[in-house]
Amino acid sequence: MAGKFIVFEGVEGCGKTTQMHLCAKWLEDLGVPVILTREPGGTELGRELRRLLLEKSEDKPVGEVTELLLYAADRAQHVQQEIKPHLAAGKYVLCDRYIDSTIAYQGYGRGLSMSLINQLNHIATGGLESDLTIWLDVNVEVGLARKRGSEEVLDRIEQENISFHRRVQQGYSELSSQNPSRIVAIDGNLQPDAVHQLIKKILGDRLLNC
Amino acid sequence: MAGKFIVFEGVEGCGKTTQMHLCAKWLEDLGVPVILTREPGGTELGRELRRLLLEKSEDKPVGEVTELLLYAADRAQHVQQEIKPHLAAGKYVLCDRYIDSTIAYQGYGRGLSMSLINQLNHIATGGLESDLTIWLDVNVEVGLARKRGSEEVLDRIEQENISFHRRVQQGYSELSSQNPSRIVAIDGNLQPDAVHQLIKKILGDRLLNC
Repeated sequence: MAGKFIVFEGVEGCGKTTQMHLCAKWLEDLGVPVILTREPGGTELGRELRRLLLEKSEDKPVGEVTELLLYAADRAQHVQQEIKPHLAAGKYVLCDRYIDSTIAYQGYGRGLSMSLINQLNHIATGGLESDLTIWLDVNVEVGLARKRGSEEVLDRIEQENISFHRRVQQGYSELSSQNPSRIVAIDGNLQPDAVHQLIKKILGDRLLNC
Repeated sequence: MAGKFIVFEGVEGCGKTTQMHLCAKWLEDLGVPVILTREPGGTELGRELRRLLLEKSEDKPVGEVTELLLYAADRAQHVQQEIKPHLAAGKYVLCDRYIDSTIAYQGYGRGLSMSLINQLNHIATGGLESDLTIWLDVNVEVGLARKRGSEEVLDRIEQENISFHRRVQQGYSELSSQNPSRIVAIDGNLQPDAVHQLIKKILGDRLLNC
């Protein structure tokens, strides 16, 4: 029995973490075995890479191509060590960010080569795609305001200027249009419980047949 | 004035470190500005990656593709932050390992895809090759015995079995044959001073015109 691979995507403050936990609770109540994980940082090695990626400093700068290679290394380890074994064991793997984050943030956001990003995504994943990717489509300003309200110190990615976040959002929008069978857009501006109801409906229709 | 990029390559215990320091001393005495560096670990970020690469542990395994991506990330940061700026400033950059190490160790040694390795080397370096690569061609058993004599604890790479090291050596041999204008083989089984005399001669003929 193979499991299902469900990815949550979106800009900062879109509500991914909240929705993943609500979704996991709901699936567990249905008797479905669930694993929660994330990128970067889904493995021990990945947690060290996540720290290097998010803690920029003057004596430890991270170049753009370096950044892309570190995300790919995190992903390769995560797919091999966590995602594939859990899927093979019949688990539902709920993952906070995956390949579309790299396309949206590094491709659309930073303007790095899409061909390079696609190459590295393929190298890292061996072609493993999600069964379903839920894009929490939230207004960029709403998302950043939520994030700023909840945490004192913004990390490097969150501090990028607003036009960067708008490019990321545009990236998700285009990815969603280009991959309608894989990516579903959900209105992340709604209240958390309303968003959860929409996600339950989508998962019920698409994966659970209930 | 552009500097020169000189790489030292070879299996464990080939004498790279000793020869790099003798070479640096000689060049400095000639009034040539010299920088000594290495891969992995030529930058602050790279030193953290080097630690992750060489300290294998049960809770922090490193997959083969992950390993390749981490070496590429180290290299990308090193080229951008150290090698290119020093070359642009007219320095002679002496580097302990570069792209040929990845081809020899991960390609010939571990049997990872050469096409993938070449792709990642190109991504990481932007095409920057050495002006000269000195391959210290030492008998594999002699090299390992030297290494074992000098250090109590062998790191992960050094502990690989002898046939792995023989494949690596074969890799250097083929690379040297395929790239005669870039890679020069020096007999690393000789005494250090004899090796140093050979290196001085090669550098004098090829780069210094003296």
